[in-house]
Amino acid sequence: MSQPVHGYAYGAPSLQPAPFTTADLASLQKTLLFSDEDVAALRQSKAILADQTDAILDVWYGFVAATPELVVFFGDVNTGKPDGAYLAAVRKRFGLWILDTAEAKYDQRWLDWQYEIGLRHNRIKKNQTDHVNSTAQVNLRYLLALTIPVTTTLKPFLAQKGASPADVEKMHAAWVKTVLLQTILWSHPYIEDGQF
Amino acid sequence: MSQPVHGYAYGAPSLQPAPFTTADLASLQKTLLFSDEDVAALRQSKAILADQTDAILDVWYGFVAATPELVVFFGDVNTGKPDGAYLAAVRKRFGLWILDTAEAKYDQRWLDWQYEIGLRHNRIKKNQTDHVNSTAQVNLRYLLALTIPVTTTLKPFLAQKGASPADVEKMHAAWVKTVLLQTILWSHPYIEDGQF
Repeated sequence: MSQPVHGYAYGAPSLQPAPFTTADLASLQKTLLFSDEDVAALRQSKAILADQTDAILDVWYGFVAATPELVVFFGDVNTGKPDGAYLAAVRKRFGLWILDTAEAKYDQRWLDWQYEIGLRHNRIKKNQTDHVNSTAQVNLRYLLALTIPVTTTLKPFLAQKGASPADVEKMHAAWVKTVLLQTILWSHPYIEDGQF
Repeated sequence: MSQPVHGYAYGAPSLQPAPFTTADLASLQKTLLFSDEDVAALRQSKAILADQTDAILDVWYGFVAATPELVVFFGDVNTGKPDGAYLAAVRKRFGLWILDTAEAKYDQRWLDWQYEIGLRHNRIKKNQTDHVNSTAQVNLRYLLALTIPVTTTLKPFLAQKGASPADVEKMHAAWVKTVLLQTILWSHPYIEDGQF
């Protein structure tokens, strides 16, 4: 059996309730043209991606490492250098995030976890999970922008297991919608009261 | 000659300077994998879209009208009904926004206009341009989410003038990036100080 991943708290009773409900989520999904077809496409992607998460994370981490504007958020504030242990700890949770995103199970439990993820990028809770001395926050503009590199670099992996080009397009489109949806939910702690 | 469009202020000396610079923009574009190829694709789309803006706006306005969560932002706060004059006034500027977005000219003048557009969706300046008595703001989550319906419904129009399927894909991908980029810039007035 694999060991539990430190800081992975999806479903933990200790999580704060999110300030958004499943009704809010349904409204947002409607605006995003997110349909049952997208849920099916995400679930189709789960089996395809399950044994590729390490290779995907290599690509994502390579992109972050090559982008000074992003790697700074993993930097130690004293040395200015990327904190290897912090990068490694986040990577384990990031792998589970891929599978959870593909699972596409949208209930209050999932919303509470999204809220926690947002708090952990915001200055309210960043660095606490891994007890690191890094930048105070991930600036929101970068968090939202990551929708594009995450989903663009995912596309070749979606095509690795023989799905038809049309199915790859559908899975990719569903991933773009759900990653944008999630980064929008993560933005809540950054936004002025009542303006989310 | 067509009449000037009320409230269209791209390039107006009266605009406030944006709190973000062309260097900030370049960093954000790098994160969005936004390249010279995307600029070329957007400019290719301009000629394709130029005589279709009314048909595009019909689709977008149809979507807004059919989505209570969105049409509320055009509602009169007293009657609760959509304000037809407000919808019509915004529509004229929205048509010019399509062409400006396809123009893909990214300088400080463009950034200042993006900042103004953000302010006009936020409670700081909403309703002022058209002197209407509507909702105090467009909630940020919907503003960000609109990236998807705007670009998804645009795709058939990109394919209307004989561009190759590969070029249509490139133009669509460039549009997704630039609309997400713009909605991120528009989010500035909504975000806590120093967290953008």
